[in-house]
Amino acid sequence: MSVQELMQQIGAAARAASRQVASSSAATRNTALLAVRDRIADSRESLLLANAEDVERGRAQALDAALLDRLALNDARVDGLITSLEQVAALPDPVGAIDAVRTMDSGIRVGKMRVPLGVIGIIYESRPNVTIEAASLCLKAGNAAVLRGGSEAISSNTLLGGLIADGLKAAGLPETAVQVVGTTDRAAVGAMITQPEYIDIVIPRGGKGLIERIAGEARVPVLKHLDGICHVYIDDGADPEKALAITLNAKTQRYGTCNTLETLLVSTGAAAQLPAIAQALSDVGVELRGCARARAAAAVIAKDATDEDWSTEYLAPVLSIKVVDGVDGAMDHIAQYSSGHTESIVTENYATAMRFLREVDSSSVMINASTRFADGFEYGLGAEIGISTDKLHARGPVGLEGLTSSKYIVFGDGHVRR
Amino acid sequence: MSVQELMQQIGAAARAASRQVASSSAATRNTALLAVRDRIADSRESLLLANAEDVERGRAQALDAALLDRLALNDARVDGLITSLEQVAALPDPVGAIDAVRTMDSGIRVGKMRVPLGVIGIIYESRPNVTIEAASLCLKAGNAAVLRGGSEAISSNTLLGGLIADGLKAAGLPETAVQVVGTTDRAAVGAMITQPEYIDIVIPRGGKGLIERIAGEARVPVLKHLDGICHVYIDDGADPEKALAITLNAKTQRYGTCNTLETLLVSTGAAAQLPAIAQALSDVGVELRGCARARAAAAVIAKDATDEDWSTEYLAPVLSIKVVDGVDGAMDHIAQYSSGHTESIVTENYATAMRFLREVDSSSVMINASTRFADGFEYGLGAEIGISTDKLHARGPVGLEGLTSSKYIVFGDGHVRR
Repeated sequence: MSVQELMQQIGAAARAASRQVASSSAATRNTALLAVRDRIADSRESLLLANAEDVERGRAQALDAALLDRLALNDARVDGLITSLEQVAALPDPVGAIDAVRTMDSGIRVGKMRVPLGVIGIIYESRPNVTIEAASLCLKAGNAAVLRGGSEAISSNTLLGGLIADGLKAAGLPETAVQVVGTTDRAAVGAMITQPEYIDIVIPRGGKGLIERIAGEARVPVLKHLDGICHVYIDDGADPEKALAITLNAKTQRYGTCNTLETLLVSTGAAAQLPAIAQALSDVGVELRGCARARAAAAVIAKDATDEDWSTEYLAPVLSIKVVDGVDGAMDHIAQYSSGHTESIVTENYATAMRFLREVDSSSVMINASTRFADGFEYGLGAEIGISTDKLHARGPVGLEGLTSSKYIVFGDGHVRR
Repeated sequence: MSVQELMQQIGAAARAASRQVASSSAATRNTALLAVRDRIADSRESLLLANAEDVERGRAQALDAALLDRLALNDARVDGLITSLEQVAALPDPVGAIDAVRTMDSGIRVGKMRVPLGVIGIIYESRPNVTIEAASLCLKAGNAAVLRGGSEAISSNTLLGGLIADGLKAAGLPETAVQVVGTTDRAAVGAMITQPEYIDIVIPRGGKGLIERIAGEARVPVLKHLDGICHVYIDDGADPEKALAITLNAKTQRYGTCNTLETLLVSTGAAAQLPAIAQALSDVGVELRGCARARAAAAVIAKDATDEDWSTEYLAPVLSIKVVDGVDGAMDHIAQYSSGHTESIVTENYATAMRFLREVDSSSVMINASTRFADGFEYGLGAEIGISTDKLHARGPVGLEGLTSSKYIVFGDGHVRR
């Protein structure tokens, strides 16, 4: 069978299964999630063995250390899979919720019901955890899923796919409700993203290269998560303690996450705060690159920032710093360079805070808080399938609701239109 | 200037204007809408003259009568434009609404704010009314718009574009916030749908051919409205009066609309109702095509329905009729043939009604009501830019909310993540 034929078969089976999953009860879907958990607990050893094969192969292919780390499972990570399945099973059922029912002048009652999206395709790189996280969230929201992990993790993912299928079957759901693509042929990705008849939305999770390639070639909708070039703006008269704490936390709590601060903007009226902030960052090993005014304000900023710095997601202990002319200067810079992920203002001025909140066009806009809060768990979504930097359908951290759609429902009693 | 360069220029101007529109007050945008209204009222004669040119040219090109009718403006239709601008100005402002603010364990307060989408492209056919309807809805929701009407209406649309620009200017908004594309070159459409850097979403309004072509070639998201193959299902024990009234209304109130009934499904247990319903439809001139069981139940159904009939949106006084085995048979037929627009069940059975409501996967699902109610005005949206048969972003009738996005907002007081 060619890869095209295989992906046709997987897609058609997913589409067929999606109707059954959509009309299943929440109890059935939760039973399936817990059945998968049991099977993972029972198969811990074979899972670690399969994963060891992946890691071994990766080492032989000289994969870099960060990638190997993401690929590797250990007891703690398997415990994490088990816990995450329990957490997702415990979340409220998003499907079937009805809201906003109103009676119209015609006499009909109109409302909206939350319904599953259908079939969700997930394309991801090395972390085998994603197989379980994605499967559980898609299933919880009443969807079928087609999962295409990286070739590095094929042994782990194939084994996990079998455990998921067993769990689905045990709960009386079709085994094809969640399918792990078993081929490492890259053509499988090309097929997945060009089958709108089978796949309703594709969510790529991985590096910028992967996401841009998929978005460029897809014929199905893509929930994109591109760069996180996040800004903190310190306003005139900002509280120095808050400004220091937020800047340090946003930059240094974790360097490699998309909600990490990459460019600090400081108003001319707050430039006197810059030496202390720059010193604190430098003390913990952050390399500082500044505009001329920033460097003049704080000698510890040792390097010039270039235009490229303003457009760079470092994901590393590096920070670019710019002195701007008040909130207008900050918002102009953000409009030009931000990736639209998360921006925060540190201010004590009510009017400025409200303007920033209203006018900055990013998926998360914050007042006096660290950009690191931009996260599905911190926002109370219970779980997160990704963070959308798109403006359509779902924006910002995407939880179960982003994996659903809605339909209008009308209650009549023989009503006809006049 | 080439068409590509022209569309680049229009797109860049729209993107720049969108930031100003987004941060404008609702009062300013309403002032602009009413200023456009005043200009239309003052320019009624020149508008009718420009439109007469379009109609004259259309006649010379032998456009068909239906198209010429859609193209033509008259005093009543100009009054309609004026009224619609007043109605849109009177709608509540969708922008800036904040909801669901909750305090998290970390102490931050998280909510969502409704924001404009950015730049909306509208591609439409002959009706010049759409120029005003689309411009007013996009602007009301805080967006910039690029409008590309059919070449038949170029004189009317160019004049309306000038009136809109004057109205925007009078309200202090950029004239480029709403731009009517002045060229009839079809390459302009190709450029619009491949400029994700300038256009956030394209809404095609027109025939199936137009929409399919755009959806197939677009590199920006498209809000699609494809066929309306709508079903009414008459359940066992349905009230005969309601069944007759709903079927007649759904089929005959207007033949050419997308929410018109195209296939009637009747349960075997309700087949005794079919002769009276078929006779009533035949009496008002509806051609009936039935499956073998339907024809056996009602002799007035004079023609066999073929497989093609189940997939056809007639938009005409023709109805296909099928006898099915209860609600499962009806839902199977709908799953196979429906376009996902609107389906209605006529039933007195609570459990069956709830199953139909939950399991039928269409943008509107109704109980004991005519499919003709699937409409933005009937649903209380105040206005309608189109009806989406997509499941992402917006589904069913799309009003102002569908022309907006949201962002997460976070209120802190120096909060950092632990």
